[in-house]
Amino acid sequence: MPEIRIDADFVERCVMELAAFGAAGETGVSRTVYSPEWIGASRCFSSWCSEAGLAVHHDAVGNVWGRLEGSHGGKSIVSGSHIDSQINGGRYDGALGAISAFIAIKALKEQFGQPRRTLEAVAFCEEESSRFPNANFWGSRAITGRIKREDLETVRAFSGETIREAMYEIGLDPSRVADARRDDIDTFIELHIEQGPILEQADFPVAIVDAITGIRHYHVTIRGTANHAGAFPMDIRKDAMAGFAEIASGVVDTAHRMGRPAVTTIGRALISPNFPGIIPSKVEFTVDARHPDPSERGKLYKIHESLMQEVASRRGLDLEWRVMIDHEPALSDPDLVDMFRMTAAEQDVPVLTMASGAAHDAQQMASIAKMAMIFVRSKDGRSHTPEEFSSVSDMVSGIKVLAAGLHRLAY
Amino acid sequence: MPEIRIDADFVERCVMELAAFGAAGETGVSRTVYSPEWIGASRCFSSWCSEAGLAVHHDAVGNVWGRLEGSHGGKSIVSGSHIDSQINGGRYDGALGAISAFIAIKALKEQFGQPRRTLEAVAFCEEESSRFPNANFWGSRAITGRIKREDLETVRAFSGETIREAMYEIGLDPSRVADARRDDIDTFIELHIEQGPILEQADFPVAIVDAITGIRHYHVTIRGTANHAGAFPMDIRKDAMAGFAEIASGVVDTAHRMGRPAVTTIGRALISPNFPGIIPSKVEFTVDARHPDPSERGKLYKIHESLMQEVASRRGLDLEWRVMIDHEPALSDPDLVDMFRMTAAEQDVPVLTMASGAAHDAQQMASIAKMAMIFVRSKDGRSHTPEEFSSVSDMVSGIKVLAAGLHRLAY
Repeated sequence: MPEIRIDADFVERCVMELAAFGAAGETGVSRTVYSPEWIGASRCFSSWCSEAGLAVHHDAVGNVWGRLEGSHGGKSIVSGSHIDSQINGGRYDGALGAISAFIAIKALKEQFGQPRRTLEAVAFCEEESSRFPNANFWGSRAITGRIKREDLETVRAFSGETIREAMYEIGLDPSRVADARRDDIDTFIELHIEQGPILEQADFPVAIVDAITGIRHYHVTIRGTANHAGAFPMDIRKDAMAGFAEIASGVVDTAHRMGRPAVTTIGRALISPNFPGIIPSKVEFTVDARHPDPSERGKLYKIHESLMQEVASRRGLDLEWRVMIDHEPALSDPDLVDMFRMTAAEQDVPVLTMASGAAHDAQQMASIAKMAMIFVRSKDGRSHTPEEFSSVSDMVSGIKVLAAGLHRLAY
Repeated sequence: MPEIRIDADFVERCVMELAAFGAAGETGVSRTVYSPEWIGASRCFSSWCSEAGLAVHHDAVGNVWGRLEGSHGGKSIVSGSHIDSQINGGRYDGALGAISAFIAIKALKEQFGQPRRTLEAVAFCEEESSRFPNANFWGSRAITGRIKREDLETVRAFSGETIREAMYEIGLDPSRVADARRDDIDTFIELHIEQGPILEQADFPVAIVDAITGIRHYHVTIRGTANHAGAFPMDIRKDAMAGFAEIASGVVDTAHRMGRPAVTTIGRALISPNFPGIIPSKVEFTVDARHPDPSERGKLYKIHESLMQEVASRRGLDLEWRVMIDHEPALSDPDLVDMFRMTAAEQDVPVLTMASGAAHDAQQMASIAKMAMIFVRSKDGRSHTPEEFSSVSDMVSGIKVLAAGLHRLAY
């Protein structure tokens, strides 16, 4: 296996060029799907691909594809990620995966000519739900054929418009969403920043991802009785805050004790009536619980649910919950994981093998193709903030691993 | 000791007549200090007093006094409570104490003629802080001489105006606040609804209050680091919510284990950024902790503070707190408590002796006079709500005890 050369200056230039679309402050990016900034970034990506001699295609929902035809035809080997961002997010989340796919395929074309198998770079239109909170992987979902007709009306922006209206406004035909479906993808590889501190703490530049975690979001409401904070004795209160606090403390402790990679977060809580001198009558909160192992995941959820029920019942509180999000874990193709570990070693890039605790387009793509992911080290584990950062040298290492794997699969 | 006759129909009529000022919905009352509804209630109280042959005086802050001169002169025996209410509060909180003082003195005058000692009924202008959050017992504070000149500017309504402006608008001269001071009050008795369930559970109509609890409000800020709820392992998080939940659970448990009458409430919490998928970076919350025993109170606060420090330090969180309110317990005069217990027995009213977990004007008055309180049973322990209710028969029992005590002191 020859060494694959990746030009560090070019990598940095591409990151900066794409980050200019929606630039916010010194290092931030705000680029929501179908916005003018997003249109600019899509055009930028398609120009890069054209200039590199790839055949460009904008599909029905606005995903951009750059295709290098293989001499033997057959199903495609695809890499890429999303180019929309969080509001006041950073330069790397998503963008780096689209850029890396383009750079890797361009480098392979320049250094090894036409592949046997077809290679494609893709820039997904939407992953962050930063404009449409229930878009739910709009770009990659379209490719897998999972968008239903009614989603065009029910996917609605924070500012009120439907995704159908937003598509129509920028010249996309909402009635053609189904055309974005692909059934000719053999393998999908997504490179992404880690968004956590594991690589940094273990001192590795790159990881091969063997699973994307399963995620469940509970929306929980716990109800007691509001009463005077002074005149009501502790032993006869129905204090919704006391119940909430015991549950929040307990579920966090459960995930902690279960050990990595289990995680549970209480990110949001709303207290009623929320006055210092009144015992709260209601707390609404979310429980975000994740595990990439299907059986451990079930165990985690079961312990959380038992705890919630036990605390509410012991304290005489009413409890209800709804499951708002429930993504099964997506396992990477084991052969792909082994192959990437081997080619990384050949390219002299030390890699860790780990699960992704974040959700990714790759877990959608896993329903129609063999899937794996590559993570690049994130400074301080930060993401979804202007402070997210990955060094050029780490990005080059990640792209080398990606390119070497694509070479192995397509040449 | 003769039986004192209290007319149940008259009690009910007075409660309903006063409740008409600021009536909200079926049974609610919204009557904030210096509002048109409050002016109506003040005039109503002064008319009652005039018609009963008491000398009426509106003082510099708007407290209304009805005076029955004693034949031997000397310092006054005073009873009363506040006539402002919570927004959407009930008919009894405060109002019942002003009404009871008027009815008791009227009944004594009618049944026993002129007293030796001077008796006064007072309707305090403000206690609830429902218009001016930092009014801090404006009515009774004026009487004790504790209002500072700058309070006229710093006491500011939720809607922005200063209390000086509000006084001026209804024809009170703010520069004369100091004139409201009294140094000729020997004894102050406040009758009030219990606002808790203790009398109901013990099946007593009335209590003699031997202490008003000490209250401290902490405003606490706990800071960690916001990070991705999936990608950040549990063991290295600085999760402000996890720290908050452990503290909230711990302080509530501490007061519970200490036993009655210790109470601790986390009534208010604000979470940042408050998104389901982000580990909270900051939780601001209040701790309301009360105990009527000065030494037990100190112990309660010490355990709370140690717990907050221990949790924050163990979890690597930043912690700061400010003490926003810190009222010492106010002890009733023990001879008054004994006397009321005895006269209640003579009137055939069974009474409990208990501490007040709520704050009252009486704790201000305790700085210038011997003080005691009488509680009347509250249905379901409710208060600060249109649902607060005390039966006519319980109110009559409370007024009988009050009148008998005033008789003992003044005749």
